Amino acid sequence: MTLQARAKSLVETRWFERFIITVIVINAIGLGLETSPAVMENAGALIRQLDKIAIAIFVVELVLKLFAYRLAFFRSGWNVFDLAIVSAALIPAGEQFSVLRALRILRALRLVSVVPSMRKVIVGLFSAIPSIATVIVMLLLLFYISAVMATKLFGEAFPQWFGSLGSSLYSLFQIMTLESWSMGIVRPVMEVFPWAWMFFVPFILVTSFIVLNLFIGVIVNAMAEATDEEAHDEREMIINELRALRGEIAKLREG
Amino acid sequence: MTLQARAKSLVETRWFERFIITVIVINAIGLGLETSPAVMENAGALIRQLDKIAIAIFVVELVLKLFAYRLAFFRSGWNVFDLAIVSAALIPAGEQFSVLRALRILRALRLVSVVPSMRKVIVGLFSAIPSIATVIVMLLLLFYISAVMATKLFGEAFPQWFGSLGSSLYSLFQIMTLESWSMGIVRPVMEVFPWAWMFFVPFILVTSFIVLNLFIGVIVNAMAEATDEEAHDEREMIINELRALRGEIAKLREG
Amino acid sequence: MTLQARAKSLVETRWFERFIITVIVINAIGLGLETSPAVMENAGALIRQLDKIAIAIFVVELVLKLFAYRLAFFRSGWNVFDLAIVSAALIPAGEQFSVLRALRILRALRLVSVVPSMRKVIVGLFSAIPSIATVIVMLLLLFYISAVMATKLFGEAFPQWFGSLGSSLYSLFQIMTLESWSMGIVRPVMEVFPWAWMFFVPFILVTSFIVLNLFIGVIVNAMAEATDEEAHDEREMIINELRALRGEIAKLREG
Amino acid sequence: MTLQARAKSLVETRWFERFIITVIVINAIGLGLETSPAVMENAGALIRQLDKIAIAIFVVELVLKLFAYRLAFFRSGWNVFDLAIVSAALIPAGEQFSVLRALRILRALRLVSVVPSMRKVIVGLFSAIPSIATVIVMLLLLFYISAVMATKLFGEAFPQWFGSLGSSLYSLFQIMTLESWSMGIVRPVMEVFPWAWMFFVPFILVTSFIVLNLFIGVIVNAMAEATDEEAHDEREMIINELRALRGEIAKLREG
Repeated sequence: MTLQARAKSLVETRWFERFIITVIVINAIGLGLETSPAVMENAGALIRQLDKIAIAIFVVELVLKLFAYRLAFFRSGWNVFDLAIVSAALIPAGEQFSVLRALRILRALRLVSVVPSMRKVIVGLFSAIPSIATVIVMLLLLFYISAVMATKLFGEAFPQWFGSLGSSLYSLFQIMTLESWSMGIVRPVMEVFPWAWMFFVPFILVTSFIVLNLFIGVIVNAMAEATDEEAHDEREMIINELRALRGEIAKLREG
Repeated sequence: MTLQARAKSLVETRWFERFIITVIVINAIGLGLETSPAVMENAGALIRQLDKIAIAIFVVELVLKLFAYRLAFFRSGWNVFDLAIVSAALIPAGEQFSVLRALRILRALRLVSVVPSMRKVIVGLFSAIPSIATVIVMLLLLFYISAVMATKLFGEAFPQWFGSLGSSLYSLFQIMTLESWSMGIVRPVMEVFPWAWMFFVPFILVTSFIVLNLFIGVIVNAMAEATDEEAHDEREMIINELRALRGEIAKLREG
Repeated sequence: MTLQARAKSLVETRWFERFIITVIVINAIGLGLETSPAVMENAGALIRQLDKIAIAIFVVELVLKLFAYRLAFFRSGWNVFDLAIVSAALIPAGEQFSVLRALRILRALRLVSVVPSMRKVIVGLFSAIPSIATVIVMLLLLFYISAVMATKLFGEAFPQWFGSLGSSLYSLFQIMTLESWSMGIVRPVMEVFPWAWMFFVPFILVTSFIVLNLFIGVIVNAMAEATDEEAHDEREMIINELRALRGEIAKLREG
Repeated sequence: MTLQARAKSLVETRWFERFIITVIVINAIGLGLETSPAVMENAGALIRQLDKIAIAIFVVELVLKLFAYRLAFFRSGWNVFDLAIVSAALIPAGEQFSVLRALRILRALRLVSVVPSMRKVIVGLFSAIPSIATVIVMLLLLFYISAVMATKLFGEAFPQWFGSLGSSLYSLFQIMTLESWSMGIVRPVMEVFPWAWMFFVPFILVTSFIVLNLFIGVIVNAMAEATDEEAHDEREMIINELRALRGEIAKLREG
């Protein structure tokens, strides 16, 4: 067995997968404990050490996989995802780059790429996208149109909410989630523009309807997959049975 | 080939459709950039010029279509929609008519009437309306009755929320979306009318139930269309197979 | 034809139904106009007169129906509903009984009992109740238990929200609708009882789950009715076809 | 009949079940009345007495069941649930342990374990768990990762919301329920960190999508159970019919 074949069989064993899962979980717990000043005072050195060990293990894991699969490694989106997350951990981040340090916990997302049942859920989610892509584009179009209108109509009077295209998009997202849309935003706006409800109420109704259609797209997708399989198999069986019957009768006629 | 036939074949080519889509998208981006004062200072003249060119292209497009289809042009609701939106752009709107200027971005909605997959989604939405029309009428009836009652009961004490039929309708819509219904409206009302919850809690329960029925109407509609097709085809196949079998046996008896 | 038979055929004609619908709609519009002081100043006498005429027509209608159907009149829940609403209109309500006057608009609900498609929707809603009755009882039980606990735990410290069983029930209903549950209620409570989230977060999760089950009950009910009919008919057809075939073959064997 | 067999037949009679249900209901009403100071002043002694009687009855009931079923008693989760709840009632709780006293109303939950239709609903809820377990774990993982990030990013500036892992988890739960997420939390945070929406808006979108998938899992589960049964039976019948037919024809060929 070549070294490459050995590496391949190693990274595909169950215990290797389980070992990596364990390291991810321990690493995630460690990064979580870092948020507690009390814990860091007592066991900070240990936790930082464990983090370095975990990164080292991830690097070794990925080097092994790269060696085992060569360029085929990059064919799987999951591998690319793992590589990106682990590489990010190697960027030197001083104490001052607090944002980069905070992103290290994203490594725990590797759990999704390692545990098969979670990968399946994610693949399922993505498989629903084509059937709802048009509806998503329409929702984005509606948001863009509404944000341009809101900026032009209310931007001058309410710069904190509709001052720029960006803040209008954010405010409209808030309104779509129905959070404080009336007491917080539309009632104050209506004190200056009494007809403003003619903009916001239809916006809420239309976005609700589009989001409902998004949901229905996902539900219909999931259902068609889930419930029809068995029924389909049974109908196939009926058709095969019928064809066999026809063959019997044909033989009967000939003989 | 007559001029009319040539015009028809021109407006039905794929590249013509794509060209119009491109113009709509560029025009929409331009109208979006108009919301940024910084961009307008540097490239305002160019953006305004592009807007004029886009309108000119839309006018030419519609004239071509009108020439190609004559009166049949008006048979398609999409054409009428396009005509209305482009005509609106031709109304002279001075700087003072800021509302009219803000409405120009509605031109981006033409994307929906030009891209076939989006047209399909809209047609799908409208096809669900007949099956939910009664429920919508009942919701409107409930809103009207509740607004009349709220105005008579709470109008005098809370004119900002229930002072007129219009403001009651708006407040009830807000309550239906559950936005600040209790802390913002019902608790203050209950301080004057302690029994007010007997009006608002049933209102929330009943509207939720009606809206749920609206959703179910749309979902059942979408599902019946989506999942049954294949099963129906297979059952048809079984029935045809059975009829053929019966024919075989009949021949067997005769022969 | 007896007088009774004549009355029966009269109240069952289409134009009689349409006439009553028209009266209900005009009456509802009139009662709505009463909320506008400006309209009442100019046309108040006319509107009050129209209201009296409408009530008179409703009384005549119900007397006719009572005469036509005798005791069978009371077998239909819709008739009893109509009778209750019209009778309520006859209670003398002075200007001081503003609540009673506000309830007069409930007469517009008669539209639901007169228009067949709306009656069907209501019957459909009620038909879903048996399948969700147990879940509703469980939701009520959960509310009762939670309200008793909340009153005992937080009643003394927060009498405005949890001072009595009634106010606890109302506050928990507000929390179930997720309105200001955290910023408005739970965060202030947690300042006194830091463990309060252990009561409220599970309450939200459990009620959401029960309400989801209520919805699923209604959806499954509606769907089973809507989509299975056609498929069931086709399967019946297949079974009948098969039985006929078997008969043919049996004859073949005998002959 | 042995004493044990007698005990068994006693606890399995319908009237025994009904008697226990009645005691639970009366006990629950009594515990509810305890929240009213007015009632307690007049009938406090009676209500406390009834509570003691109810506990005595529950103890006798459980002792009877333990005697009747011996160790088999512990095989049913419902019995263990009943035992835990009744045992908790026997812990001596002085006036100072107000929390323990408040928990006594949990005894009303025994209704769920005694009424068969409610047990069925609960069993149904639990049966949906395996199919959604992975999605729940993913939701918890997302919450953990987001809480660690939020604590590190915003903890110092907003200790009241994101000061520790626990308060971050609570705040993120509030944000997931969309309660005051923007006006209450994200807008204030954005005043310090203008890019904060890049953290919270994706968080809302992703959690909504995962919760939607949870719901779909439960709905698909419920539906597959509810609607397919009859169709499956009919298809089984068709297959059996076809096999019988084949047998007939085989006999025909032989004979």
